[in-house]
Amino acid sequence: MAKVITSRAEDYSQWYNDLVYRSGLADQSAVRGCMVIKPHGYALWENMRDVLDRMFKETGHVNAYFPLFVPKSLFEAEEKNAEGFAKECAVVTHYRLKTDPADKSKLMVDPEARLEEELIVRPTSEAIIWNTYRDWIQSYRDLPILINQWANVVRWEMRTRPFLRTAEFLWQEGHTAHSSEKEAVEEALRMHEVYTRFAEDYMAMPVIKGAKTANERFAGAEETFTIEAMMQDGKALQAGTSHYLGQNFAKAFNVKFLSDQNREEYVYATSWGVSTRLIGALVMTHSDDDGLVLPPRLAPVQVVIVPIPKPSEQLDQVARGLMDSLRREGIRVSYDQDEKNRPGFKFAEHELKGVPVRIGIGARDLEQGVAEVARRDTKEKESIPLENLPQRIKSLLEEIQANLFRRAQEFRDLNTHYVDNRSRFEEIISGPGGFVYAHWDGTSETEEAIKEATKATIRCIPMEAADEDGKCIWTGAPSRKRVLFAKAY
Amino acid sequence: MAKVITSRAEDYSQWYNDLVYRSGLADQSAVRGCMVIKPHGYALWENMRDVLDRMFKETGHVNAYFPLFVPKSLFEAEEKNAEGFAKECAVVTHYRLKTDPADKSKLMVDPEARLEEELIVRPTSEAIIWNTYRDWIQSYRDLPILINQWANVVRWEMRTRPFLRTAEFLWQEGHTAHSSEKEAVEEALRMHEVYTRFAEDYMAMPVIKGAKTANERFAGAEETFTIEAMMQDGKALQAGTSHYLGQNFAKAFNVKFLSDQNREEYVYATSWGVSTRLIGALVMTHSDDDGLVLPPRLAPVQVVIVPIPKPSEQLDQVARGLMDSLRREGIRVSYDQDEKNRPGFKFAEHELKGVPVRIGIGARDLEQGVAEVARRDTKEKESIPLENLPQRIKSLLEEIQANLFRRAQEFRDLNTHYVDNRSRFEEIISGPGGFVYAHWDGTSETEEAIKEATKATIRCIPMEAADEDGKCIWTGAPSRKRVLFAKAY
Repeated sequence: MAKVITSRAEDYSQWYNDLVYRSGLADQSAVRGCMVIKPHGYALWENMRDVLDRMFKETGHVNAYFPLFVPKSLFEAEEKNAEGFAKECAVVTHYRLKTDPADKSKLMVDPEARLEEELIVRPTSEAIIWNTYRDWIQSYRDLPILINQWANVVRWEMRTRPFLRTAEFLWQEGHTAHSSEKEAVEEALRMHEVYTRFAEDYMAMPVIKGAKTANERFAGAEETFTIEAMMQDGKALQAGTSHYLGQNFAKAFNVKFLSDQNREEYVYATSWGVSTRLIGALVMTHSDDDGLVLPPRLAPVQVVIVPIPKPSEQLDQVARGLMDSLRREGIRVSYDQDEKNRPGFKFAEHELKGVPVRIGIGARDLEQGVAEVARRDTKEKESIPLENLPQRIKSLLEEIQANLFRRAQEFRDLNTHYVDNRSRFEEIISGPGGFVYAHWDGTSETEEAIKEATKATIRCIPMEAADEDGKCIWTGAPSRKRVLFAKAY
Repeated sequence: MAKVITSRAEDYSQWYNDLVYRSGLADQSAVRGCMVIKPHGYALWENMRDVLDRMFKETGHVNAYFPLFVPKSLFEAEEKNAEGFAKECAVVTHYRLKTDPADKSKLMVDPEARLEEELIVRPTSEAIIWNTYRDWIQSYRDLPILINQWANVVRWEMRTRPFLRTAEFLWQEGHTAHSSEKEAVEEALRMHEVYTRFAEDYMAMPVIKGAKTANERFAGAEETFTIEAMMQDGKALQAGTSHYLGQNFAKAFNVKFLSDQNREEYVYATSWGVSTRLIGALVMTHSDDDGLVLPPRLAPVQVVIVPIPKPSEQLDQVARGLMDSLRREGIRVSYDQDEKNRPGFKFAEHELKGVPVRIGIGARDLEQGVAEVARRDTKEKESIPLENLPQRIKSLLEEIQANLFRRAQEFRDLNTHYVDNRSRFEEIISGPGGFVYAHWDGTSETEEAIKEATKATIRCIPMEAADEDGKCIWTGAPSRKRVLFAKAY
């Protein structure tokens, strides 16, 4: 197969785009900023969704579905939220087309079918959901409400990149209602923990857990918890956020409850979400110049069997037996029955698609009762007796999962810096990049000044870092804790 | 519990609305014609989706995701399709809001952010998908493409009813591409069969399979296959359609392939879909004046255990053991641990929600080693020894599933008429209603005249009816086959 992917060293950004399109994850579309999620990409999303959905249900949540459209009057009710999203809203103004009198083969918007009130295509659903919760909540007995929604949302971003930033994307958004601040904060932290487990245990992507600064919070939140991952170019990617919304939405939509003390109070809220952006994060965490590298727990196909040099009655039979025994172990396996292409082409194709393990079966190997097993992450090959294959493949998939996490963590550690002065900070941010733990004086002004000068932002105030006295790298003012800086996607 | 549902006899239409809202399937929303699918309704949809998704994958399909928006120029490319949907389109014309200078607390559409080309919120995705397929198809080797999409779509209907007809609804839409008419027609028929199996085997809803008349076809289709079910008011509900689209979309979007004879040809297409409308069909097929009646194979909760008179340590322990053993049989079971309400209230609540089987456990029953098992469909109760419960419940769920199908089929048969003249036709349609098999001369004019005069439409030209010489009930012209007439949702 021809070399089709730009190397990371040559142009990291181009490598990402090449990889996403060439590996069959996504395609461009005729709609500005919107992508087509192709079957390989969607299968990956289905696996991510299924795991997350199970984790949400295990933590007591149920799914529901709310309208795509938000009437403008509801959209603007929570001011900060509205302000945060107003600049990137798709707006429906009409509900009918008609034949264009100037050209009967064309349609035009029917000016008579103007909506009385414009509808916003949801960029997020707090407004429409809290407007509904008002009818569902009277007393503390109606609480908590623990609802999640799988949906598409639209944010009219000006610069888009597949998965990382698209005008329309798929996501889940949890929206919960509680009778106390304590319970709501606990919920936000619980989902923050769920996202952490998902990122680390399934995506094999180590993350830093922390809280956002006031500047970087979700519009309308009192507190935003985030998980931040490092991509292979040293930049940070915000992989999932969980918001404690206080009583902001309850006040905007007048959602009150009668407490067990018989007092009327506003309801406390959280919201939390992850999106198809995670697919971009997954690609940029593990993949290499030959293609995708997918963690076995999420890979649509975990093992592919390739007949060498091509399918035959004997090889097909061996493959069928092997597939049965692998499937019994719960392994997702496929058999490459293509007759046209040669093994070398197929190997490259499955590497491009990120299949974690490839089993080559050829007549000569079979005579010796072995098959060749190649792992995608390290490219190592080993010859395995057929009778040991199911057990070996099972443990190999676990090894690969663990290795990907370890490798990503080593990379992150290698590119993490503790910096105590401005010049070193600027040197690292403008040079090799990576994560920088540094002291900050806690003011939005300094945060803005650093961003302005270096393009680095405070990714989070880490939860797991110890307190430490120090001085702000920018102003010299005292600080009690390092925060995490990086350039970000 | 207070009587809250209008009876069917009193007002069938009101009964349906009461039931949908009261049983927690759906709620109204602030957006005209859009509903909120509540957790109970969404859990039902998830079960339907999971079964269908498995059936689609077993027949070789994969999922993908295409943009929500269709640029107007693409939308109008296939003329008949465009014409069919133009009158009910939500149109996005702007991509930004700004602060209203007249009232700073309000937002307004920013007139400067007008889109160069309007975007249609997809009412169906043929246009955007076939515009994409053009880039994916060069030769017969790229065919077939067998893709399905789970998505939301918007059709600006003027009269809406929850699930049955809403401005936004959830559905799946399959879009396949083939190298021959034969293969494409086979695909359309295969999915028609999948829908039939789903309706009958899972929804326990008998259907009549047939083809639509030219008048009633999907806009842009050469042939539309449909499954038609009878609701309890005798009206028909179109429950799933599968379209052979010929080369119409390939021509509109210039999608050609090089055949194995090295000839350039337009690609053949199908599309097929079912939607959340099926939830409405399910409700109207089986439910009664006390609430939902759900077929066990789709019910979110198949069995509920109710402690009598309320939870206690002893009853909780028995319930836990019972749940374990039922879950081992693959049964979805829940335990009603509510402390506040009395058994009678709970019974009514679970009946309202349609739980197929209720197990009552009380201290006195336990002394005798039995529990009371009540089935939702017939309201019959039996006392079952605890040790036999898992096996008995398992077979009972199958009995209920079969009984619902049988009951619906009997009802349909009882309300199906073979009619040979106009006056009898009009008498039945305007009177008791139901399905009417009658001869029709095959012309659109007659079809329209009958619709105009009686409100009955030709639901389908049945596939499984024998040929039979007769005379059109309206014009007396010769006919070779009876077609199925009914009033419809």
